[in-house]
Amino acid sequence: MSGYLHHLRICNAHNPEDYRSWSIGASEVGMVPHAIADKLLQCGFSENGSGLALPAGPFEDVSKKLAEVSERLREAGLAARARGEFYPVLTHPDAEPLAVIDRGVATEFGIVNKGFHLNGIVRRMDGTFMWVARRARDKATYPGKLDNMVAGGHPAGISAFDNLLKECAEEAGIPAEIAATARPTGVISYRMAVPAGLRRHMFYTYDLELDPDFVPEAVDGEVESFELLPVGEVMRIVESEPGAFKYNCNLAIIDFLLRHGFIAPDHPDYFELANGLRLRNV
Amino acid sequence: MSGYLHHLRICNAHNPEDYRSWSIGASEVGMVPHAIADKLLQCGFSENGSGLALPAGPFEDVSKKLAEVSERLREAGLAARARGEFYPVLTHPDAEPLAVIDRGVATEFGIVNKGFHLNGIVRRMDGTFMWVARRARDKATYPGKLDNMVAGGHPAGISAFDNLLKECAEEAGIPAEIAATARPTGVISYRMAVPAGLRRHMFYTYDLELDPDFVPEAVDGEVESFELLPVGEVMRIVESEPGAFKYNCNLAIIDFLLRHGFIAPDHPDYFELANGLRLRNV
Repeated sequence: MSGYLHHLRICNAHNPEDYRSWSIGASEVGMVPHAIADKLLQCGFSENGSGLALPAGPFEDVSKKLAEVSERLREAGLAARARGEFYPVLTHPDAEPLAVIDRGVATEFGIVNKGFHLNGIVRRMDGTFMWVARRARDKATYPGKLDNMVAGGHPAGISAFDNLLKECAEEAGIPAEIAATARPTGVISYRMAVPAGLRRHMFYTYDLELDPDFVPEAVDGEVESFELLPVGEVMRIVESEPGAFKYNCNLAIIDFLLRHGFIAPDHPDYFELANGLRLRNV
Repeated sequence: MSGYLHHLRICNAHNPEDYRSWSIGASEVGMVPHAIADKLLQCGFSENGSGLALPAGPFEDVSKKLAEVSERLREAGLAARARGEFYPVLTHPDAEPLAVIDRGVATEFGIVNKGFHLNGIVRRMDGTFMWVARRARDKATYPGKLDNMVAGGHPAGISAFDNLLKECAEEAGIPAEIAATARPTGVISYRMAVPAGLRRHMFYTYDLELDPDFVPEAVDGEVESFELLPVGEVMRIVESEPGAFKYNCNLAIIDFLLRHGFIAPDHPDYFELANGLRLRNV
């Protein structure tokens, strides 16, 4: 198995039998581990065929109920702390949200998380280069790992475009007029088992072509430093240093390499890589 | 449902219960309708759990056996004429072939068909344009429909790159030195029920950026004419004229539109479109 394929396998490793689906009314919105399912049944969820269900209700009421249940999970040691940032709860990533839930428990409730990853690219006479971020050593998650130039979750109530501009400014000091030239290039999606629950991610991908003299700046402390690397060096790291980049950044880079022909049809895993970056149903 | 999504639904419409898998030894390679499965059982295939199996054997022997069985299917009115061009029979699109089979019965045997579609692009001061082909009126399949600039099946025994150069020359008069600049951009895959069987396609996609003064030429009679259209006009046709392009060309264009940001995250079906152009397992 090539080093590239390894990353796809890592991001999609899970056993569907380890989870039960849950719904708001008849609308399926999440998947929870059995330990959490048992707790939910003590908190107002009912058995619903093979899954669990919370009664349908107005947006605010369901959101409030989910916040209360999250607190009960926390008390039982089954959920992480609240972050004070809210993710939509929805049946399908293109659908209207039925409620919101704190970002800190998105994985515990197994809802679809949206976000984005942006590859910052510089084309020079001597080749194509990619801006790579080094995550801050004191960051709670994946400290010190390499990262895409900019990446972020997509909270409820903000457009994809506004979220892109906001994160570009906060994480890398990219002015809005430059960030606005980023080209949306599609979506990556995967389902991954983690200790807290099921991580179901769908992230928008962007290519941002930057002038050779543009230098990003770590603004909000999430990033320690930025480095401009030749694409060939980024490829070498992704292929042969499995722990160098934060796990899902590898997918964003593999997608870039495929779209731009750096990974070509003569690669022995070409079809599996190209077909494997997305799930029909995340 | 948007006009774009309609094309994805069309290309993926099938009911798995209408087919049985078949194997060479223990290696699953195809899916056949029940009527064909019944006939195969009269031609040396045996029941194998939920599917059918042909005994494993040397490449040449299995290929010869499949040619014989194809002839029996033809006699029974269950298969199309032979084309004299051979497709690999394989367990997985990245795997080595176990046999070859005539292109004319690829759908009847439900094997994975490989091929490619190439979008010819011209960037001018007044916008981005796409070369669109009109299929010959006397072509056996989809006569008179619009098509991508170049597209073709990928026969056994030729590399993806050589096949690209060959078809570019034959279908559009594109010199090898220009065709060689085409950028591979990934894969599209789908499963589609058709009267003959199950069409399982995986095709490489390419972008070929052409000089504004380059004009393609219909060489081998497959194409009636070429026209250079603004991308906005191509979008309008794909979205609002569902029968204008040959069915799967729509997917190649939607993929282009997504990769280049012409379809952006504010599209109401963005995730479904971007996730829906590929199957994990075709």
